Amino acid sequence: MPSPKTQPARGMRDFLPADVRKREYVISVIKQVYERYGFEPLETPAVENIETLMGKYGEEGNQLIFKILKRGEHEKTGAADLALRYDLTVPLARVVAQYQNELPKFFKRYQIQPVWRADRPARGRFREFYQCDVDVLGSQSMVVEAELIAAASDALVALGFKDFTIRLNHRQVLTGILDQAGVAPEKHGDALMALDKMDKVGPEGVARELRDRGIVDESAVRLMRFFEGLAGAQHALYLVDLVDAGTARAAYNADVLGRLVEFVGAHESGASGVDDLRQILQFSKASDVAARIKLDPTLARGLAYYTGAIIEINVADLAGSLGGGGRYDNLVGMFLGKDVAACGFSLGLERIIVVMSEREMFPPALVSSPADVMVTIWNEESVNESIALANELRSRGLRVELYPQADKIGNQIKYANARRIPYVAIVGEDERIKHEVAIRDMEREEQLRFSFEPTAKEKLFAWLNERKAGEAGGGIKPGA
Amino acid sequence: MPSPKTQPARGMRDFLPADVRKREYVISVIKQVYERYGFEPLETPAVENIETLMGKYGEEGNQLIFKILKRGEHEKTGAADLALRYDLTVPLARVVAQYQNELPKFFKRYQIQPVWRADRPARGRFREFYQCDVDVLGSQSMVVEAELIAAASDALVALGFKDFTIRLNHRQVLTGILDQAGVAPEKHGDALMALDKMDKVGPEGVARELRDRGIVDESAVRLMRFFEGLAGAQHALYLVDLVDAGTARAAYNADVLGRLVEFVGAHESGASGVDDLRQILQFSKASDVAARIKLDPTLARGLAYYTGAIIEINVADLAGSLGGGGRYDNLVGMFLGKDVAACGFSLGLERIIVVMSEREMFPPALVSSPADVMVTIWNEESVNESIALANELRSRGLRVELYPQADKIGNQIKYANARRIPYVAIVGEDERIKHEVAIRDMEREEQLRFSFEPTAKEKLFAWLNERKAGEAGGGIKPGA
Repeated sequence: MPSPKTQPARGMRDFLPADVRKREYVISVIKQVYERYGFEPLETPAVENIETLMGKYGEEGNQLIFKILKRGEHEKTGAADLALRYDLTVPLARVVAQYQNELPKFFKRYQIQPVWRADRPARGRFREFYQCDVDVLGSQSMVVEAELIAAASDALVALGFKDFTIRLNHRQVLTGILDQAGVAPEKHGDALMALDKMDKVGPEGVARELRDRGIVDESAVRLMRFFEGLAGAQHALYLVDLVDAGTARAAYNADVLGRLVEFVGAHESGASGVDDLRQILQFSKASDVAARIKLDPTLARGLAYYTGAIIEINVADLAGSLGGGGRYDNLVGMFLGKDVAACGFSLGLERIIVVMSEREMFPPALVSSPADVMVTIWNEESVNESIALANELRSRGLRVELYPQADKIGNQIKYANARRIPYVAIVGEDERIKHEVAIRDMEREEQLRFSFEPTAKEKLFAWLNERKAGEAGGGIKPGA
Repeated sequence: MPSPKTQPARGMRDFLPADVRKREYVISVIKQVYERYGFEPLETPAVENIETLMGKYGEEGNQLIFKILKRGEHEKTGAADLALRYDLTVPLARVVAQYQNELPKFFKRYQIQPVWRADRPARGRFREFYQCDVDVLGSQSMVVEAELIAAASDALVALGFKDFTIRLNHRQVLTGILDQAGVAPEKHGDALMALDKMDKVGPEGVARELRDRGIVDESAVRLMRFFEGLAGAQHALYLVDLVDAGTARAAYNADVLGRLVEFVGAHESGASGVDDLRQILQFSKASDVAARIKLDPTLARGLAYYTGAIIEINVADLAGSLGGGGRYDNLVGMFLGKDVAACGFSLGLERIIVVMSEREMFPPALVSSPADVMVTIWNEESVNESIALANELRSRGLRVELYPQADKIGNQIKYANARRIPYVAIVGEDERIKHEVAIRDMEREEQLRFSFEPTAKEKLFAWLNERKAGEAGGGIKPGA
C-alpha cells in the first residue's frame, strides 16, 4: 500500500514515463518553433538570492515565494537567504543586467523551465509547473509584438490547436480610457479589476462592482457606455457567414480601433497605445495569425510590470489562458539602473497538456511501447548469446529491452505483452544449434525464423527496422 | 556594470545560449543511448517532503540539504517542511513504493534532472548540478549490472570518449576481505576510508592511516599484504604490448579474481560477492565494454546504501569520477516496507562537460549561429514584406531571425555579422520593384539575386536549404 510518506509533496507531481513523453513532445514542438524564429535557449538556476525575487510580484507574490533556510549555524535563526524561481521573467531581467556586454543588442531568448509558487493547489494548478517563455530585449518596435504573437500562435498550431483566440490590449490604452472616463489615477486598479470580469459577470455585474469599489457614478457610466458600445462591434463578427473568418475579424478589430480612437481622443499616451495596437494588427497581416487576433479592451492581466501591449491566448474549453505576455520596458532597469525595452510571451505547459489530453491531440506513437524488441534469455548458459544479440540490434538503431534474467519463456513473453513490446527475439536450444533467431510478432501472434549467420543476419536487422518504421506511422519517436 | 545583486546565487550558474546547446547535446546523446537499452524516462519534483530526504544520506548529507521554510503564518517559526532534491535515487525509491501497482515488474528508468547540495562551491563543484541516472528495479541478476555498465559506457563512447576506465568492486567482497583480515565490524568504515586512498597516498600512507584509525596491527598487515599483492597483478597489463588491450585486461581481472577467491576463501557473503563479480565480467564479454572494466578491490564509494556491486568510471585528466553507481537492494524497503532489488548508475553532466570542453570534443556545428538567415527591414513601409519573407522561409524549415526594426542596412548587416548568421536577405527598393530578394553570403561577401515571383521563389528556398545542409556538416542541429 502506498503510504502518505511516499506521495510527492503537496501540489507537486511525479511524471511516469508516459507523462514524461507527453511533456517532452510538447516542449520539443515549442522549442522547434521558437528556434525557427531565431530565439536562443537560456537557462537560469532554480534558486535565486531572495532579494532578486522579493518585491517584484506584488504583495501576494511575496507570500507565494518558496523561501530557503540559511544553512549551518544560521539554520536555527529561521532566516531565509535564497528562494525558488517564481517566474522566468525576473531571472531574465537579472541575466540581461549581468551579461549586458556578452549579449547581442537584440536578445531573443526562449526559456522552458519549472517555476514554483506556494499557491493553494487546485485542478490544473500546481506548485511546480513549467513556463515556456519567449522574450525579445532591446527593441521598442511593434515588430517584436507581432513576432511574439506569431511564434506563440505557430507553436500552438504545430501542436494541433486550431480554435484559439489571441486577445490583445494595451496598458496605455487602458490608462487612456480610465483617464478619459474621469477615473482618479489611484482608482485605476480597482476599475480594471471590475472591468476584467465583463466576461464572467456581464455589464450589470461590472457596473455594480465599479460602484462597490468607489468609482464615481459619472465615470462608471462613461466606462459602461464605452464597453457596452463595444458589444456593437461584435456584429462585424457575424459577417463570418458572408466573408472568411479573417475578413470578419479584421472588420471587428477595425471597428474597435475606431471606437478606441474616438474615446481615448487626445489622451497622449492612450493615443500612442492605440497606434501600437494598429501597428501590431498591421504587422500581423503578413501571416495567417491575423484572423486569430481579437482586440479586447477589457483585457487587463495582473502583473504589475507591463507597460505596453498585453496579450492572452484562450480556448473555449479552458477557464484560464493557454498563455499570456506583454511589454515590460522598465523591469530590466530595476537591475541594470537603465531601462531596456522588453516584450515577452509565456505558454503554460500544463494547461496545454490538459487540453491536449482531454481532446486526445497527442500522436498515437507517443504512448507506444518502451522498446522495439525484447530479447529473451533462454537459460543461464545462454545469457551471453542474448546480450550479444541485444547489442547487435541496438547497434542497428533499435530500442532493445533485454529480459534481465533466465526465466520460463512463457513468463518472458507475457511480460513483453504487458509492456506492449511488439517483437520478441528468442534464441532457444534449436535456434542455437541452427544459428538462428526466432522473432515473435506479438500482435499477429506468429513466429518467424531468421538466420543469424554473419553473412545472413542483416536480413533480420532490415526486417525489424522496416517493421519499426511502419509502426511509428509518422509519429514522433520517443527520445528522438 | 554588473552588480553583485545581478549575479546568480552562490554556487549556481546561468547558462547562456552556447552553454545550453552544449548541455542539451550531451543530454540528448545520453538519452538516446539509454532509450536504446529500453530505459524509460521518469521525472520527480524538485521539492520533496523533508522527511523523505532526511536520514538517507548520512549526517553530512543532512547538513547539505537545502530546506524550505514553511509558508504563511508558520513562516516566522523558522521551521522547514520541504527540501530540495539531493539525488535522484531516493526519489526513485519513493516512486517505486508509491506506484508499485502501475510499474512493470522490472522498472528500467532513466532520469536526467538537477539536484541541489549546499556544498562549499569549488572548481567543478556546484550547488545545482545535473545527474543522469539509470536504474533497474526488480531483478537480482548480474545481467542488470552488465547492462548498466554497457549503457553508461556506450553513452560515453557516443559522446566521443575513448579512454575511460570502469572500476568495479563489491561491498560484500570488501566486507569479506576485512572480516578475513580480522578487522572488527565496527572498524570496517575506518579501514575502507584508509584503503580508498591507495591511489593518492600509496601503501605506506595507507598503512599509517590504518594504524591512526585504530586497526589492530595484525589485521593491517594482512590487509596490506593482500593489497600490495594486487600490484603484482598489474603485470598482466604489460601484456598489452604482446596482445590486444582486451586480452591484457581480461588476464589482469582473472588474476585479481583468483587472489580474491584465495583471500576471501570460505567467507560466505564475500564468496558470493566474488561470484557476482565473475558473472558481471562474464556477461560483459558479449560487448566491447569488457576491455574497459578493471576489478579494483580498493574502490569503496561513500554512499551508505550500496549492498552489492559498486562501479565508478574515471578518466586520467579528471580528479573525480565521470559517474558511479552500484546495487542497493534495501533502499526501496525504507519506503515500501519490503525490499526490492535495485541497481543503478549515475553520469555527472557537469564533469562530462568539463572534460569535453577542455578536450574540445563538441561538434563544431553546436557553437554556430542562432539562425540560418537574417531578414532585414528596408524601411517603415516595407515591414510587412520582410515579415512575409521571414514567414515563408520559416515554413520551409529554415531558422530565420527578423531584424526587429527599420534601420540603416549597414547596421543590420553588421549585426548579422556579429551574430555569425551566414546569410542575410535584403528586399530594397530595387528588389521590391523587380519582385526579387537579394541574398548576401556573409562569408564570401557576395550578393546574389533571386526572383520572388510565386512561380520562381522555390529556387531561393532550395538554394538556402542546400547551403544550410552544407554548413551543418554532419553535426547535430541545435534544437533538433
